[in-house]
Amino acid sequence: MDDISFPKGFRAWGLACGIKKNGKPDLGVLVSEPPAQVFSAFTRNAVKAAPVLYDQTVAAAGRKLSHVLVNSGNANACTGTRGYEDVAAEVALLREKAAPKGDVMVSSTGVIGEYLPMEKIRDGIGRLFAAGETFAPFIQSIMTTDTFEKRARKTLDLDGKEVRLGGVAKGAGMIRPNMATMLAYLTTDLELDAGYGETFLGAVEKTFNSISVDGDMSTNDTALLLANGASGVRYASLSEKARQSFDAGLRELMEELAKLIIRDGEGATKLVTIETVGARSSEDAKAVCRAIANSPLVKTAFFGGDANWGRVLAAAGYSGAELVPEKTALEFCGVKVMANGGALAYDEDDVANRMKAKDVSVKVDLGLGSAAWTYWTCDLSYDYVKINAAYRT
Amino acid sequence: MDDISFPKGFRAWGLACGIKKNGKPDLGVLVSEPPAQVFSAFTRNAVKAAPVLYDQTVAAAGRKLSHVLVNSGNANACTGTRGYEDVAAEVALLREKAAPKGDVMVSSTGVIGEYLPMEKIRDGIGRLFAAGETFAPFIQSIMTTDTFEKRARKTLDLDGKEVRLGGVAKGAGMIRPNMATMLAYLTTDLELDAGYGETFLGAVEKTFNSISVDGDMSTNDTALLLANGASGVRYASLSEKARQSFDAGLRELMEELAKLIIRDGEGATKLVTIETVGARSSEDAKAVCRAIANSPLVKTAFFGGDANWGRVLAAAGYSGAELVPEKTALEFCGVKVMANGGALAYDEDDVANRMKAKDVSVKVDLGLGSAAWTYWTCDLSYDYVKINAAYRT
Repeated sequence: MDDISFPKGFRAWGLACGIKKNGKPDLGVLVSEPPAQVFSAFTRNAVKAAPVLYDQTVAAAGRKLSHVLVNSGNANACTGTRGYEDVAAEVALLREKAAPKGDVMVSSTGVIGEYLPMEKIRDGIGRLFAAGETFAPFIQSIMTTDTFEKRARKTLDLDGKEVRLGGVAKGAGMIRPNMATMLAYLTTDLELDAGYGETFLGAVEKTFNSISVDGDMSTNDTALLLANGASGVRYASLSEKARQSFDAGLRELMEELAKLIIRDGEGATKLVTIETVGARSSEDAKAVCRAIANSPLVKTAFFGGDANWGRVLAAAGYSGAELVPEKTALEFCGVKVMANGGALAYDEDDVANRMKAKDVSVKVDLGLGSAAWTYWTCDLSYDYVKINAAYRT
Repeated sequence: MDDISFPKGFRAWGLACGIKKNGKPDLGVLVSEPPAQVFSAFTRNAVKAAPVLYDQTVAAAGRKLSHVLVNSGNANACTGTRGYEDVAAEVALLREKAAPKGDVMVSSTGVIGEYLPMEKIRDGIGRLFAAGETFAPFIQSIMTTDTFEKRARKTLDLDGKEVRLGGVAKGAGMIRPNMATMLAYLTTDLELDAGYGETFLGAVEKTFNSISVDGDMSTNDTALLLANGASGVRYASLSEKARQSFDAGLRELMEELAKLIIRDGEGATKLVTIETVGARSSEDAKAVCRAIANSPLVKTAFFGGDANWGRVLAAAGYSGAELVPEKTALEFCGVKVMANGGALAYDEDDVANRMKAKDVSVKVDLGLGSAAWTYWTCDLSYDYVKINAAYRT
């Protein structure tokens, strides 16, 4: 069973309809029965793909959702009027074949600027709901340059009642705040009211919007949480403690998926955790994390196993955050290397050894306040260049 | 003769004092006799190296400048109180050995976070002004990972009188707006009043602040223009046409040096010119240029010779500039590939051939207004990763 269909009332599957040239699964569907309350976060790129624009209208309508259709291999982005018409055609086909009880959302990921191969998709949607077909896991149908499946599940005991959470994501290149080329689908059989949206968006900020592979942001990024209430448990009826327990469980699941995306960043050899503390504001702490996470100089230094704190400090310095060198301290993998704006004596061999691990970290203490943020990124390797210089050719 | 000492009244030279382990020149001095009016632009990084902080106080004092001392191999950045004391010691040594008639500025470039080897520098400053020494060109003493010398000169006829311009620069990695790890020194024998600063800063914005190798910004970036009036020609006494001719000549010289820096970007194989037109404001046009110039996905696509306009449009989309996909058009190397938010039919072989050149371009027309900006960047190659993963080790 796919992790995403681990909570009660969810089913998900996929197949290969020929969008991808390599014959791998490229069309999938997630179904919630009963239809689910949906919470959504989309790319902030001014250039939004047609399916994102469509999904935003569905989200705004606020009705329950029963189906999400996803294709990989083609992003249906920068496809003008025809792109929108193709989304409408997909939705019409889904309505015809699956008779959804609720609303429908559509996601696409893959190459930008090419029209969807609608004949293949038409055929594929038919097969998704036909008897006698053999299906692939949903997660496989949403992958592009991903090298492994990103999925997670969790069972929570809330006031003595069992509630389930599940999730899948795709990522790889072009990931950063605002979830570039990232798709993430989360499901729960807890019943959530529309008012939960703010908590969900807060968790998105701390997880999917706090990761970066290369600082780029795609036209298609989407994170959805579907809550169908099939467990019979209502969030609103839970104790304060149980509600906090659900909030924390959901965020942990999202963080787990976000980190898996970074581990599979194009060419990544390391997961780098960047922690900024002592900032004047959360915005400052996040800005420092982001500047460090997106610096090619810092990322190549991590690839080389080099505790190059000068590059880290320089990146923090141009982040726009309030920073006083004389109050700033830096740690690599738990070892203090800089304080009060100057170098500390430290055991270089010890730090070099720690930097060889697959999980490394850098911590910046701005020494100005009490705000903090955590961010995850990967290193920048030869393979990143190789993968991205050759992607279309 | 060094290009920087091409204008009358300037001399410049250097030598190896042992800061660089490879024995190459690492200490240089530029002298203006008579002392020159100085115009300056420094890094906007919140973390500024000690020499930058010192030079800013000199600039604020507004007196004439007679000497600039530069070392490479060590940036004297993130060196705390001792860094400032070392700058003061350098200045005192220079005053003792060279008896400057005007003020003195100091620049440093190289590794961050290590103290200047003051004994070597003390010895080096002595030798710079000793009889019987053999000197290297100034330009060589300011280079770090640069693979070639960046220099330019120009003679202008202003109202029938000859005025000379010269310049040298160093760059390579870590270059972007605000001139990260960039040093540029410009000289002219024209007499300029203090009021020329605004024109100089405008030219810096359009040249040294419109280039990017990797989007990082260093702690030491400095651009200086020294004008000593040794030609006997005063800017204030020139005709309007001659003044415009000087402004244009200076900016051309700066653009020439800026492009040389990009051609020598770490691992660069191509010079990419990014032009944004039709923007609502200059700020928007520049933001679009910068987002494209700093996108690793765009830069690896250029390395691969791939006219990947989807990545260019996605970068423009997250730049923060006002952008309407349906009004946006894109060109690669003069060939229109996208208009009105959608792909155009174009000859892919033709574009692929053009993308193989060493000089390539991308043009974005936002279709919203009349503001424009031009930016220069390089591609992102295997060698960039190689150089930067191994820089310190």
